[in-house]
Amino acid sequence: MPASRPRVVVVVTGSELARGDRRDLNGPFLARELTQLGLEPERILLVGDRPEPLQAVLAEAVEADLCVVSGGLGPTHDDRTVELLARALGRSLEVDESLAREIEAFSQAVAARLRRPLSEFASGIRKQASLPAGGLSLGLAGSAPAILVEHAEGKVAIALPGPPAELQRLWPNAVAHPAFQELLRRASAPERRSLRFFGPSESAVAAALEESGGDGDGVEATVCARDLEIHVDVMVSPGGEERGGELVAALQSAFPNDLFARDDERPIEEMVLGLCRSRGLLLACAESCTGGLISARLTEVAGSSDVFVGGVVAYANRVKETTLGLPAEILAKHGAVSAETAAAMAAGARRALGAGIAIADTGIAGPGGGTPEKPVGLVYLGVDGPEGARTARFELSGDRETIRARATALALHMLRRTLTHSGTDPRETAS
Amino acid sequence: MPASRPRVVVVVTGSELARGDRRDLNGPFLARELTQLGLEPERILLVGDRPEPLQAVLAEAVEADLCVVSGGLGPTHDDRTVELLARALGRSLEVDESLAREIEAFSQAVAARLRRPLSEFASGIRKQASLPAGGLSLGLAGSAPAILVEHAEGKVAIALPGPPAELQRLWPNAVAHPAFQELLRRASAPERRSLRFFGPSESAVAAALEESGGDGDGVEATVCARDLEIHVDVMVSPGGEERGGELVAALQSAFPNDLFARDDERPIEEMVLGLCRSRGLLLACAESCTGGLISARLTEVAGSSDVFVGGVVAYANRVKETTLGLPAEILAKHGAVSAETAAAMAAGARRALGAGIAIADTGIAGPGGGTPEKPVGLVYLGVDGPEGARTARFELSGDRETIRARATALALHMLRRTLTHSGTDPRETAS
Repeated sequence: MPASRPRVVVVVTGSELARGDRRDLNGPFLARELTQLGLEPERILLVGDRPEPLQAVLAEAVEADLCVVSGGLGPTHDDRTVELLARALGRSLEVDESLAREIEAFSQAVAARLRRPLSEFASGIRKQASLPAGGLSLGLAGSAPAILVEHAEGKVAIALPGPPAELQRLWPNAVAHPAFQELLRRASAPERRSLRFFGPSESAVAAALEESGGDGDGVEATVCARDLEIHVDVMVSPGGEERGGELVAALQSAFPNDLFARDDERPIEEMVLGLCRSRGLLLACAESCTGGLISARLTEVAGSSDVFVGGVVAYANRVKETTLGLPAEILAKHGAVSAETAAAMAAGARRALGAGIAIADTGIAGPGGGTPEKPVGLVYLGVDGPEGARTARFELSGDRETIRARATALALHMLRRTLTHSGTDPRETAS
Repeated sequence: MPASRPRVVVVVTGSELARGDRRDLNGPFLARELTQLGLEPERILLVGDRPEPLQAVLAEAVEADLCVVSGGLGPTHDDRTVELLARALGRSLEVDESLAREIEAFSQAVAARLRRPLSEFASGIRKQASLPAGGLSLGLAGSAPAILVEHAEGKVAIALPGPPAELQRLWPNAVAHPAFQELLRRASAPERRSLRFFGPSESAVAAALEESGGDGDGVEATVCARDLEIHVDVMVSPGGEERGGELVAALQSAFPNDLFARDDERPIEEMVLGLCRSRGLLLACAESCTGGLISARLTEVAGSSDVFVGGVVAYANRVKETTLGLPAEILAKHGAVSAETAAAMAAGARRALGAGIAIADTGIAGPGGGTPEKPVGLVYLGVDGPEGARTARFELSGDRETIRARATALALHMLRRTLTHSGTDPRETAS
């Protein structure tokens, strides 16, 4: 009889997380990595640094076959993960002298760089070199080690440092450990099929999914709206391949023009850059209400500089005139938030920045600045490229952040549609 | 005898969260709101849509005095929160006919806008109008209602829709409900004192905290590094006021030049805009390696347009020359990544965009493009304002995203220091 699928729990510690002062990056990273390995976590627990709730959470988490804890390994008094993990496992804490020497060597370099005495670090070094009895260090990144403890019947507890870069650097060491590999033998990574739509509502996609029989029979489908896209993930367990294929085919034929990505997880900005690259087009943008977000998303992609030449954030009207060469008459006649201005901004960015295609936006992100004729959420986009110019008008809802993010997503999809000639949005107008 | 402090648990549902495909915004929002009300959550649980783990989490969560659940209220088959919450509470599900009419009215508008038949929405409407017996709707945002159920001895369970804008719109209705207010009477919101430092290491701040006696006696202090700032939060419970004041004073005198915010939670970009406003200076930026992030952060602040005129994302060298008027000789002699280029970009942005002060950056965000002389992570900043020009050189570590985010934070703090004349970073050079 094969052993059952391992139960996995992730614990993310930090009072700033439990109070909502910081967004957690480690839970999502660990969840993604574990899911890809077939070890999708049953739950992710965020908990503060206070001893009682943290102790309760850890005691519960070590019941799982695999428990991965992030944070609380630092040198400060409120870093309690190792001490409380040891207690949850019923083990004592012991200083690992060779680890202490490693941490001291690292701390010497830091102290030198910051021009601080090493003595400032001394108590932290002893603290950070303390491990639950029987546990071992998986290596250092920064001054904190990652820690692995094997306990009851092949169960594994792993503690990783909280800074995301350090956690991500040490994670492969945890995966490579024989005890982790032993758990992996009991996991079966499901095959994952993904479809991304732009256009239909989440309800319509869900209805199409139900009409085609829904999930079950080794297939689990989830529908979610994300950044104006509708994502369908179909997780196919062994034996569910045929049913999974049917579901995917049914969804594909329900919205043939709206499906833009199949098993393609690249963010839309990366797709746009790829389309420009394959057509030999340089890309530029002129942003008003998105204030730099389009440029920021495009340049987040490594290697974007071979396609993206740059952008202008034209917040003041004067900047629209001087940097983008926008005729003052257009602003005077139609106003800054108008289809004409969006078109002229795109044309101006294409010309001024020497690009083959350019996208522009102008709108009212709010909360102030709206009028009955031009309410908060009104956004015009303009694209100017080798196939001509086109504008689109949207009335978006939400707060300032939401409107800016939606306008950015719409702009990127307008570029995609233009570059793939994949039809127009009913809201787009050729000019 | 006063009733004890309410135990609070937050549950955030969604397979895309448990798999790490999306960052959760609702947990942090709810945690922040609850903490401000004195109801800091004991734990935040993220769990997927599969029935068994979700059922287990909800059964556990409703044991708390207050349980707030986000997500899983949608019309689709994998939205199971209400059904499983009812089961956790031992209640049946009942369709609320008046709620059904409200949801239908909303759905009609959506169907009309999307040009879809209302029949597509019919089963979703019945599903979304089903409540645990005895529960009530707190209002709609989108098609999903927020739900409140009072159960055993004043305990309260609340379910809110997953889309962050909808959740945030309905949250005040939950807080206003008498059962929630009754819980609030048992909570005592601790006073919160916060200090933010720019300069010292987290270890140094933690050491200073310990030297001054550490926390205890009604005072809980946490130290965390965030966006290159070191934040110290001192939560003062009734009776701990004196000790709290001592701690704050000790930290303040330990790093007098590095403390830049006291009980001031405004993000650095908002502080910079405020400093410009009070000095009557218009602000511009010229970005290379940050690719729009500085502009995006500044324009995230509502009302930024009265100070921030715009920016140029000068990714290609040609854009640096044409849009910012950067002399070709500087690029030829010193290269795009140099102090001279950063200075000339700042001067160019100030002139071309008509600003009183401008910030510029140029650097190598990686992963490609590094050389032994100019490695990945090398970043130059330049500021040009009424008090003259200054540049700074940094060697940053981390991946592309980290380097870009750190360069952005350094640029904003360089602006702050320039605007407050609060000394220079040892790495800054007047030019």
